[in-house]
Amino acid sequence: MAVEVVYRSSRDLERLFMDKAEADRHDKMLELAEALSAALHKAAPSLSEQQAEDLGIFMARHRELFAKAFKNNPEALAELPVEA
Amino acid sequence: MAVEVVYRSSRDLERLFMDKAEADRHDKMLELAEALSAALHKAAPSLSEQQAEDLGIFMARHRELFAKAFKNNPEALAELPVEA
Repeated sequence: MAVEVVYRSSRDLERLFMDKAEADRHDKMLELAEALSAALHKAAPSLSEQQAEDLGIFMARHRELFAKAFKNNPEALAELPVEA
Repeated sequence: MAVEVVYRSSRDLERLFMDKAEADRHDKMLELAEALSAALHKAAPSLSEQQAEDLGIFMARHRELFAKAFKNNPEALAELPVEA
């Protein structure tokens, strides 16, 4: 047995990473997801917490495609997978 | 009386513009909104049509802020107005 270093995001204590860069990517994804969920909830107060959270995580997971869409290429979203 | 030229987007026949560039911006906004609504609806099938449409239009109206957020600056979304 030995002591080893693992990494996690303070936003998601359950998920542990052996690689710091991966933990950092996960943290950044969750940071964006939280900001998106809050923004969507403000825009459409009828959204449930769960819907807002699901949408935030979905968009954050596919941030490159959404970044392209918002820049100048809405067709980029056609590349999204059908299931979240 | 005289004949005059007005412009409109084929996605929104009711809104007329005196300026072609403005009509073009409106059309581009609606194109992005439609792509976003479809993407969100796929990600969260429990969304109503109205919710998906409202969210698509809200995000498309604020595309610059969302573009920044998706690029690398989630804090940009704090600048969104509270009401859509």
